[in-house]
Amino acid sequence: MKGLVLTAPGRIEIVDLERPKITGSQVLIKLKAAALNKRDQFIREGKYPNIQMNCVLGSDGVGEVVEVATEANGTWKGKNVVINPNMNWGSNPAVQSREYSILGMPSHGTFAEYIAVEDGRIHEVPKHLTPEQAAALPLGGLTAFRACFHHGRIRGGENVLISGFGGGVAQFAFQFALAAGANVFVTSGKQDKLDTALKMGAAGAFNYVEKDWYKNPWQTKGGFDVVIDSAGGDQINNFIKIMRPGGRIVFYGATNGLPGSLDLYRMFWNQLTLQGSTMGNDEEFKEMIDFVSEKKVEPLIDSVRPFEDITSAFDTIAKTTKTGKIVVKF
Amino acid sequence: MKGLVLTAPGRIEIVDLERPKITGSQVLIKLKAAALNKRDQFIREGKYPNIQMNCVLGSDGVGEVVEVATEANGTWKGKNVVINPNMNWGSNPAVQSREYSILGMPSHGTFAEYIAVEDGRIHEVPKHLTPEQAAALPLGGLTAFRACFHHGRIRGGENVLISGFGGGVAQFAFQFALAAGANVFVTSGKQDKLDTALKMGAAGAFNYVEKDWYKNPWQTKGGFDVVIDSAGGDQINNFIKIMRPGGRIVFYGATNGLPGSLDLYRMFWNQLTLQGSTMGNDEEFKEMIDFVSEKKVEPLIDSVRPFEDITSAFDTIAKTTKTGKIVVKF
Repeated sequence: MKGLVLTAPGRIEIVDLERPKITGSQVLIKLKAAALNKRDQFIREGKYPNIQMNCVLGSDGVGEVVEVATEANGTWKGKNVVINPNMNWGSNPAVQSREYSILGMPSHGTFAEYIAVEDGRIHEVPKHLTPEQAAALPLGGLTAFRACFHHGRIRGGENVLISGFGGGVAQFAFQFALAAGANVFVTSGKQDKLDTALKMGAAGAFNYVEKDWYKNPWQTKGGFDVVIDSAGGDQINNFIKIMRPGGRIVFYGATNGLPGSLDLYRMFWNQLTLQGSTMGNDEEFKEMIDFVSEKKVEPLIDSVRPFEDITSAFDTIAKTTKTGKIVVKF
Repeated sequence: MKGLVLTAPGRIEIVDLERPKITGSQVLIKLKAAALNKRDQFIREGKYPNIQMNCVLGSDGVGEVVEVATEANGTWKGKNVVINPNMNWGSNPAVQSREYSILGMPSHGTFAEYIAVEDGRIHEVPKHLTPEQAAALPLGGLTAFRACFHHGRIRGGENVLISGFGGGVAQFAFQFALAAGANVFVTSGKQDKLDTALKMGAAGAFNYVEKDWYKNPWQTKGGFDVVIDSAGGDQINNFIKIMRPGGRIVFYGATNGLPGSLDLYRMFWNQLTLQGSTMGNDEEFKEMIDFVSEKKVEPLIDSVRPFEDITSAFDTIAKTTKTGKIVVKF
């Protein structure tokens, strides 16, 4: 079968690999679609811990179960499934174990024609989604779901700010918060993304390139109960200024680096939370899929291209111009 | 009656005041003991917002109910009570309202022979405590209780680090965490305080004056689930290094100022919480008093002096040499 692997630092190639053999509780999935995450490009660029060569990359995937190893899994055969990319979350629902990893290095991932997966990690594709749409869900959807609900505790009627709208996780955080009945605001540096968010139901959209943009939402909207962020940097102190008392700032990345200070005074007097978050546990993955089905969430797709062109997808994911997920189909 | 007021910026004096008159649901309390908080000295030094002159200072007090305004409050008469120093917490248990203030400016406080208080803010003195001991509880105990249990969610068996042991709140956080069955560690810059903590049951005590002190607890104790801190500053990044995944850093002050950076990367990967906290709601005050009664917590008292010498108590509270609360008796 064909599969995409890192053959040397910085070099990804589609190579011929042996089709995986399944045993025990595994099922064999023939992939229909897969989606990219920044993680994939970070691995290509050598910006990820414990990089290994010759491992199939890719965390997000949807396909048909074509083979099962035990009779008990017979009902899965022929079904389209979406794969939970968690490996070894562990027994503590609050946080991943030391053995935790994400599908697609060190374990073989979804950028291949076939993948062997434990039966506990597959879920039926939500009925309202195509395989391409469903392939966009796993890593971004799970990360957004935990950030929004486990840590952010977003409730209907709350004011929620999603920074960096258009990013793979941010788009889900935006849609999930909307579906939960919150008043959702976004920031972006690009006007077209702000327009997209407003069209999709944002209560407000702010261009963070404008100096003091944050003073406007504060003055006009009464502040935010929850901010979902992945940029970090000095902006965190602006968020602290525009939080309502008891508010929660949840971040799942720090692409702008570390802040030069932190306004602890405002934080303790207003009882604010600054909460780190990453991924989500297996139960949350199931809840996320159920939530997407129930609320009929449709992932934003930036583009779909054939698997053969996946290298160009890696090039695109590094850019800030995309809005939504980049998908490849087989 | 005699009462301590700020007569000019920086100047506190015991003056003659009219005994308060009670109406409605108020009761009149003849004070037996009161305790100081750093807040009192901050007010004296002009380091507190909205300072007003000629207001009786003092947030912590215990006394006997000598007069009630309604028959329904007759059962309170003759009882020794401890006063909840919250004023107008508001309806949201998570965070205080904008109208919130602390007893003892702008409302008349406990540094006087008599005080008028609403009946909803008095609680019977725990049976195992003297009035001097109980007077040490309110502000420090409430702040510690919320930090430990509402925000810190301390459970038995967890590793808890209390920074700055000996401070008015830290001593309660230490004792509450111990009483909850946690393994409690402390830091202090003074060896005699570390010795006191070890004698009282600390699982470990670290002198933060030693460079890299934090590397030892990390290497030998497996890290902390909860840190309770009021110093802030760059030390926060050391705490982040020694937290277990899913750990919570709760701070109720920032006496060392703001940190020069914040390790967001470790925070999100380990799903750490940095949580601001201040005071606690009225329900928590009641729970704190019940907890103290049930667990037979005895506040650490640094010294007790007559009310007439209260100015010297203000001088002492600013110093780092004290261990426990400074109390005045009437």
